[in-house]
Amino acid sequence: MIKVGIVGGTGYTGVELLRLLAQHPQVELRSITSRSEAGMSVAEMFPSLRGRVDLKFTSPENAKLKECDAVFFATPHGVAMSQAKDLLAANVKVLDLAADFRLQDTAVFEKWYGIPHACSDILKEAVYGLPEINREKIKKARIVGLPGCYPTSVQLGFAPLLSTKNSSKQLLVDGQSLIADCKSGTSGAGRKAEIPTLLSEASDNFKAYGVKGHRHLPEIEQGLKAIAGHDKIALTFVPHLTPMIRGIHSTLYARILPQAKGVDFQDLYEQFYANEPFIDVLPSGSHPETRSVRGSNGMKIAIHRPGGGDTLVILVVEDNLVKGASGQGVQCLNLMFGFPENLGLEQIALLP
Amino acid sequence: MIKVGIVGGTGYTGVELLRLLAQHPQVELRSITSRSEAGMSVAEMFPSLRGRVDLKFTSPENAKLKECDAVFFATPHGVAMSQAKDLLAANVKVLDLAADFRLQDTAVFEKWYGIPHACSDILKEAVYGLPEINREKIKKARIVGLPGCYPTSVQLGFAPLLSTKNSSKQLLVDGQSLIADCKSGTSGAGRKAEIPTLLSEASDNFKAYGVKGHRHLPEIEQGLKAIAGHDKIALTFVPHLTPMIRGIHSTLYARILPQAKGVDFQDLYEQFYANEPFIDVLPSGSHPETRSVRGSNGMKIAIHRPGGGDTLVILVVEDNLVKGASGQGVQCLNLMFGFPENLGLEQIALLP
Amino acid sequence: MIKVGIVGGTGYTGVELLRLLAQHPQVELRSITSRSEAGMSVAEMFPSLRGRVDLKFTSPENAKLKECDAVFFATPHGVAMSQAKDLLAANVKVLDLAADFRLQDTAVFEKWYGIPHACSDILKEAVYGLPEINREKIKKARIVGLPGCYPTSVQLGFAPLLSTKNSSKQLLVDGQSLIADCKSGTSGAGRKAEIPTLLSEASDNFKAYGVKGHRHLPEIEQGLKAIAGHDKIALTFVPHLTPMIRGIHSTLYARILPQAKGVDFQDLYEQFYANEPFIDVLPSGSHPETRSVRGSNGMKIAIHRPGGGDTLVILVVEDNLVKGASGQGVQCLNLMFGFPENLGLEQIALLP
Amino acid sequence: MIKVGIVGGTGYTGVELLRLLAQHPQVELRSITSRSEAGMSVAEMFPSLRGRVDLKFTSPENAKLKECDAVFFATPHGVAMSQAKDLLAANVKVLDLAADFRLQDTAVFEKWYGIPHACSDILKEAVYGLPEINREKIKKARIVGLPGCYPTSVQLGFAPLLSTKNSSKQLLVDGQSLIADCKSGTSGAGRKAEIPTLLSEASDNFKAYGVKGHRHLPEIEQGLKAIAGHDKIALTFVPHLTPMIRGIHSTLYARILPQAKGVDFQDLYEQFYANEPFIDVLPSGSHPETRSVRGSNGMKIAIHRPGGGDTLVILVVEDNLVKGASGQGVQCLNLMFGFPENLGLEQIALLP
Repeated sequence: MIKVGIVGGTGYTGVELLRLLAQHPQVELRSITSRSEAGMSVAEMFPSLRGRVDLKFTSPENAKLKECDAVFFATPHGVAMSQAKDLLAANVKVLDLAADFRLQDTAVFEKWYGIPHACSDILKEAVYGLPEINREKIKKARIVGLPGCYPTSVQLGFAPLLSTKNSSKQLLVDGQSLIADCKSGTSGAGRKAEIPTLLSEASDNFKAYGVKGHRHLPEIEQGLKAIAGHDKIALTFVPHLTPMIRGIHSTLYARILPQAKGVDFQDLYEQFYANEPFIDVLPSGSHPETRSVRGSNGMKIAIHRPGGGDTLVILVVEDNLVKGASGQGVQCLNLMFGFPENLGLEQIALLP
Repeated sequence: MIKVGIVGGTGYTGVELLRLLAQHPQVELRSITSRSEAGMSVAEMFPSLRGRVDLKFTSPENAKLKECDAVFFATPHGVAMSQAKDLLAANVKVLDLAADFRLQDTAVFEKWYGIPHACSDILKEAVYGLPEINREKIKKARIVGLPGCYPTSVQLGFAPLLSTKNSSKQLLVDGQSLIADCKSGTSGAGRKAEIPTLLSEASDNFKAYGVKGHRHLPEIEQGLKAIAGHDKIALTFVPHLTPMIRGIHSTLYARILPQAKGVDFQDLYEQFYANEPFIDVLPSGSHPETRSVRGSNGMKIAIHRPGGGDTLVILVVEDNLVKGASGQGVQCLNLMFGFPENLGLEQIALLP
Repeated sequence: MIKVGIVGGTGYTGVELLRLLAQHPQVELRSITSRSEAGMSVAEMFPSLRGRVDLKFTSPENAKLKECDAVFFATPHGVAMSQAKDLLAANVKVLDLAADFRLQDTAVFEKWYGIPHACSDILKEAVYGLPEINREKIKKARIVGLPGCYPTSVQLGFAPLLSTKNSSKQLLVDGQSLIADCKSGTSGAGRKAEIPTLLSEASDNFKAYGVKGHRHLPEIEQGLKAIAGHDKIALTFVPHLTPMIRGIHSTLYARILPQAKGVDFQDLYEQFYANEPFIDVLPSGSHPETRSVRGSNGMKIAIHRPGGGDTLVILVVEDNLVKGASGQGVQCLNLMFGFPENLGLEQIALLP
Repeated sequence: MIKVGIVGGTGYTGVELLRLLAQHPQVELRSITSRSEAGMSVAEMFPSLRGRVDLKFTSPENAKLKECDAVFFATPHGVAMSQAKDLLAANVKVLDLAADFRLQDTAVFEKWYGIPHACSDILKEAVYGLPEINREKIKKARIVGLPGCYPTSVQLGFAPLLSTKNSSKQLLVDGQSLIADCKSGTSGAGRKAEIPTLLSEASDNFKAYGVKGHRHLPEIEQGLKAIAGHDKIALTFVPHLTPMIRGIHSTLYARILPQAKGVDFQDLYEQFYANEPFIDVLPSGSHPETRSVRGSNGMKIAIHRPGGGDTLVILVVEDNLVKGASGQGVQCLNLMFGFPENLGLEQIALLP
């Protein structure tokens, strides 16, 4: 049984952490902070947790976070990096759901997030929390930067094609003309009062956004380069907003290189993810639906090669708040503390 | 560990039973039948269950249901009553999610469901599966007729006002001018190919239906009479279709009798449901949301008396597929087999 | 051809006015104000109007509103009453979509809106803009206070029962136990950045709100008293938020008085609204859908008397932004300027 | 004033035609057929048309279609080709909303639609009803095969890049690696009772479908080849179902050829569509939303070149039932009868 704290629990990744951790057999929820809501009971803000979470929000000053074994940051970008050092010094493991420990290049961080990085020394030891790629490093990590929701689906969708660890010992696709056409539900925008994500605006509507440039692009490219083991990666990334609450559907396009035209890509994916508890490669010809992972930590992937041609189409679905955020955080927590990787993460998707 | 079978598993109450029972620590899922889909794996039809449910649909003939300890019927009305006798004779307990064992008056059944009742003898021993009202009878039952989704919310919403077991020893409201204005998501209509529940028809739309008469009306009135211990009950019941998947919100209206004007109704409800694991009476002034019970077996109730006047307004929410159907079925199963009542039913609602 | 200005055009009633007035053959849109967006073109904020509305938002100071023949206020409560006097003095007719000129009792206004009324003299001459009730007065009005969205549907739904002008010359229903159970889409909450109406919060969800007291309650009661010609009116009003953009469905309940049990209510409604261009009494047994008036100025009403009993159920649908707001505003404008009442209001509902 | 008939008016393209034609100043709706609903009034099936369309559905035998000037087929594939000959012989112009007259290669038609083509002679004279490409031919046509919904958006989205009529006199993009990632609302699936498009299945969900092959692929490729004037065109087409009623958002990807890297693509598109009444090229950097054309015949296009690289991203939105079907049909009708092209098509999009 470990003691866990959450900094910033009033957003969607926060309440999702609460849902998951309240059911986790090895976790005692110790404290949850919110400066603005200090004193309010968690169950008052989120009635779904009445009878299940008895905590009140406390101000960060009073949260006694250093008494925890692990602390999650479900805060805006920039908060975790100002507090991580002290927590690590007190022997508390840190998991950040924001971007502070995702990008190793501080110049890139500052360009996309508009603030200087406050602790580049700690950043160096931070591990990127994508278990399917970095499992062994996460097990030993003191601090984990959890991937963004889009980056999780795009990296795991392309990984078998790019990884030097796949069963084919050659370059398979052109890494410099990759396309990720991604569709997200509105919860990805967070629990923030903003006009564009009002039901009246976003419902019965579909649009792209951030086509010029999105913060997740450098993160994905960094990740794909690490997976590929080289720098010749370029991605066109087009995110879209779709009128649903949860779920990301990434439609990925890659051009098959001439020498790889005979590869059995279905088999390649199945082998690559054969031992992964949360990655499900669907049978050939499938079309995964976001609802098939709604509320679960699973990811489903389908491989298509339309007309037997040179373009590979990979369909990837995840719940952006679970595998794309808080569930992945719990998965990393399990690894960091030696628990079974799927402990507390066996919820079956809610369908319909 | 008990062996459980499901007859008719391709509808929404069926797949919801599968979700719940697959996670139930004392249940071994033995067989699931579907005449039309015999041979197909359950996970092929419901990819959310891949890796969690390994069964295939079998034809009813081959289902070996008599080897089960309990069998659920998640079938159209009329199926359970044709098979219950044999199962009971083989010492199998029966839980019917359809209407076959809800209405004790076979003439009423035949009027509303358009078919004669096939086994009035078994009907007599059937227990109406509303644990908060009939807990002790359910514990001893061999056969349970599970309540409809609307009836669950309306009966439990009115029960503290009408029951002779409430803390006030008098008539509190006029039982002959009760109104239930109920709103249901579309999953209540089942997984049936019909035009009115297409997304293109039912989304961004709201309507009443069945105002002339709905099958749940006689069921509710039967239940309220049993709760009240007298026959002077008349209900105006107006169901509506609301553009969401899961959830029922019942807005109930009752006229306070002159002698009851001083009653503390908030306290009355809190006491009535004080020991119920799944019924949550919210603080005074609350407005429950259907999403606060989405995917959970909980019910939330709030009491209002606008302007301090003579009209009591009771707001009730449930997930129609859980507390309104399959979850309640599992709750009854737990009672029938002596398990803790909330075993396998501790899912926290999915919010957002 | 008249010149029309709009004060406060960035909300939903504003953009809806623009949609309607841009297609109105007798209206020249002269100016539209927004302090916050001054200088921005209307079409940049609302791309649906590109090529159809060439105006820019201007600051109120520069709007030259006094050169208009009529000015609409699509502003928060409290703005119109501070500017109406000057406009009237300049011979400009005023139509207010907010609440400033709805409630004749300034004490009631101040209680519910929390601000003192700034111009009780002008208030006295203001006409309540419900054409089906006040047509002749609207024709002569200089200033019109347009009804709220809920009040439009509730008043017109109850009017045939309460009005002394109906075909039956007697009291028909108990005016003191009226119930209005109303369901609104989220656009009724306006184009405001607020968490509860985010798609992630309000979608796939249903809830009541404001049960303790809602600003539309005194407005409705004032209106029903005027229609009935007496003060013995009391209403229980429960508004709900339903996950759709446009539309209000009001389910109204009234108790039939003993002497009225023989009345043909279907006929009563059909006669009462026989000559109304926008009110459509549906055939007996109908269930109107909100989508059947989506984007149109129509209202559809159906009458039910379940089981032939004492409770009358009236179902009313309208588009809250059209008949419940801007469309009704244009209807009043037509009356005030002697145009055909349906000029520019003949859009057919968008279905599906 | 021309007389118009509709064959098969009970689907979504049928009711949309009714909405548009009922408001068309030069059209008299003469008859509408439906074998299954013969005798029912149109307004009973579609209450949105009460008071606006007084027709009843008639059986095809009694429809007196030969007395019309033009007949629309809003029928399943295969119906129009069996009746077109007789109508043309009677001097009736024919517009088919199904696929019978879209594909000039009958072998391709038979492969994708599974039925032999019944009138290849008439097919030869049929004009593909995409006015922005084939305006002059449509003006003279007796028979028009209207484009599918996806093909309309994909062809018009790529046309400026591929057309020999664009302002740049060179090849601009690689026509053999085109990608169209398209997202459609559920009304594209028609008004058919099918499980996958139930609200309970399709709401709060996102999925691709038909990735292996979709009937619109050969149609698009035929069209793009005609536009380009050569055969070196290959498209990867991935359609998706998005939880909304109306709207298609096509995200198109094209690789810029080396010699075209200096081209101003924004300017190219603006010039190409400069005189088109329904095509709106948005300012650089825009993200069109489907709701900005909801209910209107407009199409909005935005051009992006992320990072100034080699990949062009074109965003296209249309209402699948208007510009993608019935609106385009009326646009063609106007051309065929010498009316102004936008007559009866000036509806402003419904937003919000």
